[in-house]
Amino acid sequence: MKEFDLIENYFSKYASKRKDVLLGIGDDCALLKVPEHQVLAVTIDTLVEGVHFFNNTPAEFIGYKALAVSLSDLAAMGAKPAWVTLALTLSQVDESWLENFCKGFYALIERFSLQLVGGNISSGALSITTQLHGFLPEGKALRRDGAKIGDLIYVTGCLGDAGLALQLVKRAGGKINHNTPVDLLQRLYHPQPRIKEGMSLLEIANSAIDISDGLAADLGHILERSKVGAMICVDELPLSLWLRQKTSLSEAINLALSAGDDYELCFTIDPKFRANLEEIAANFECKITEIGIITRELGLKIKHKNGQVCGLVGKGYEHVWC
Amino acid sequence: MKEFDLIENYFSKYASKRKDVLLGIGDDCALLKVPEHQVLAVTIDTLVEGVHFFNNTPAEFIGYKALAVSLSDLAAMGAKPAWVTLALTLSQVDESWLENFCKGFYALIERFSLQLVGGNISSGALSITTQLHGFLPEGKALRRDGAKIGDLIYVTGCLGDAGLALQLVKRAGGKINHNTPVDLLQRLYHPQPRIKEGMSLLEIANSAIDISDGLAADLGHILERSKVGAMICVDELPLSLWLRQKTSLSEAINLALSAGDDYELCFTIDPKFRANLEEIAANFECKITEIGIITRELGLKIKHKNGQVCGLVGKGYEHVWC
Repeated sequence: MKEFDLIENYFSKYASKRKDVLLGIGDDCALLKVPEHQVLAVTIDTLVEGVHFFNNTPAEFIGYKALAVSLSDLAAMGAKPAWVTLALTLSQVDESWLENFCKGFYALIERFSLQLVGGNISSGALSITTQLHGFLPEGKALRRDGAKIGDLIYVTGCLGDAGLALQLVKRAGGKINHNTPVDLLQRLYHPQPRIKEGMSLLEIANSAIDISDGLAADLGHILERSKVGAMICVDELPLSLWLRQKTSLSEAINLALSAGDDYELCFTIDPKFRANLEEIAANFECKITEIGIITRELGLKIKHKNGQVCGLVGKGYEHVWC
Repeated sequence: MKEFDLIENYFSKYASKRKDVLLGIGDDCALLKVPEHQVLAVTIDTLVEGVHFFNNTPAEFIGYKALAVSLSDLAAMGAKPAWVTLALTLSQVDESWLENFCKGFYALIERFSLQLVGGNISSGALSITTQLHGFLPEGKALRRDGAKIGDLIYVTGCLGDAGLALQLVKRAGGKINHNTPVDLLQRLYHPQPRIKEGMSLLEIANSAIDISDGLAADLGHILERSKVGAMICVDELPLSLWLRQKTSLSEAINLALSAGDDYELCFTIDPKFRANLEEIAANFECKITEIGIITRELGLKIKHKNGQVCGLVGKGYEHVWC
């Protein structure tokens, strides 16, 4: 089957119709209209078989995650998602695989009212590149370089679950073990992009990032870009019941600090906005947790509630702790 | 070396500064401002090692072509290129390869005043995905679906050279054989995106496409989308001196009709604009050639000047000829 037929069969049939898409799939370019007084936010990500997912990962999970990862980047900027392009490299034409990939992919397309506006299908080792396009009001954005000394540091949801799920799947040789709790697997394979939360934070947060590489590493990017430091309290880290039941406390903390794939948001706000944040967060689909404070002293300090220092992260993105 | 360092070292150092890039590489998203009264044109393409280029192709050629292919898509819409994102999947970290890749890539970035605004570097089988973003005045575009019965069909440059070069390189096992004329190799590895030409045609052309899969196949897309047919004259096909010297006439015609990779433009205009076209084309960097006419009768007819019919392409994109 030719590329042409593939695109026709598996992607055009889901055709959605956004008004800002003047010309969709089927020409040399898509033609798109950014709304007035809005700027365009774009992010591109690649998932490679054997690197970002195991060879036997169900296609539905891959389709979902390929888009979830990019949506999470838009969430971290506070942007409203709009258009997607997809470059799919397939080692073989497997219609059942494509059908399942689309199930996961279009679950998020529909949920966030997106439109696939362009694509490319190639032959080669399985990999998926998605570019996502969203909108932000002019002059607004949750950037990494805006954290201020004295800002409170928050995270959405719980941390470390995806890391634990990955450990369990790894132990089962990449297979989905039926002993692994479904909720935990969902945290790895169906991360929830915090779009609504990111957009709501636009008015009050000074900085934000999504946690794809682990809290310490990603918070480290904020610190580096904002030229500040941070102190976080390990006893405040939001740990799920699953994580607490399946691992020791120190391993749970380790996962929460260093494991990636949670795709929660880490953001900072001026303390004067604490009450506003609580009000806004009442409408969030997840809890938020205050975990620390931005400091003048550079680097990331991690301590216990009783003041005992756990570790110091050198440049802010190499993590060594207790 | 980590992804982070790679990006820093090889891409950030070339940092260009377009005014419409509000935030470039280094955050969760790039923030971009489309000029007023312009729409965004986007295209995404992937090159895979062993599929789109031989394993031993010089990295400079790969870097150039990865961008040239996408630029050609913008040219075919008449769009002015602006921003690039790059998803690079590398099987190993080879600094000399990256250095050379960047040479080719940035040659075009500079030539067309582009800016790389986002990227992703992954580990895996070598492949390069580029997304290109350009601008078009609202309501203007060279689409595939605008060809009208009676339109004259033109192509830019010469056809078939890249196809011949590919044959010669293939015969040498993918190596660049020093017996192959440099100019011919350039046609394969350094196609010239017809940006200026596409933009100039915006006011007069009814339809356009870039010839990536061969004239018959690509003109076929115009015919299908525009619900028309075409008659082209093989004796009018622009064949280079190289092509005429290195092959028989029938093989040259075959290559001109069916070989891809030339990245010339095929476009149609109302005959009343013939004089305007000649005026405009005086400033082109390549010649243009009238090769046929759009017909009411569906399908693609290919004939000689003396009227002898060479072949008929069924649906317009499956090519069988003399």
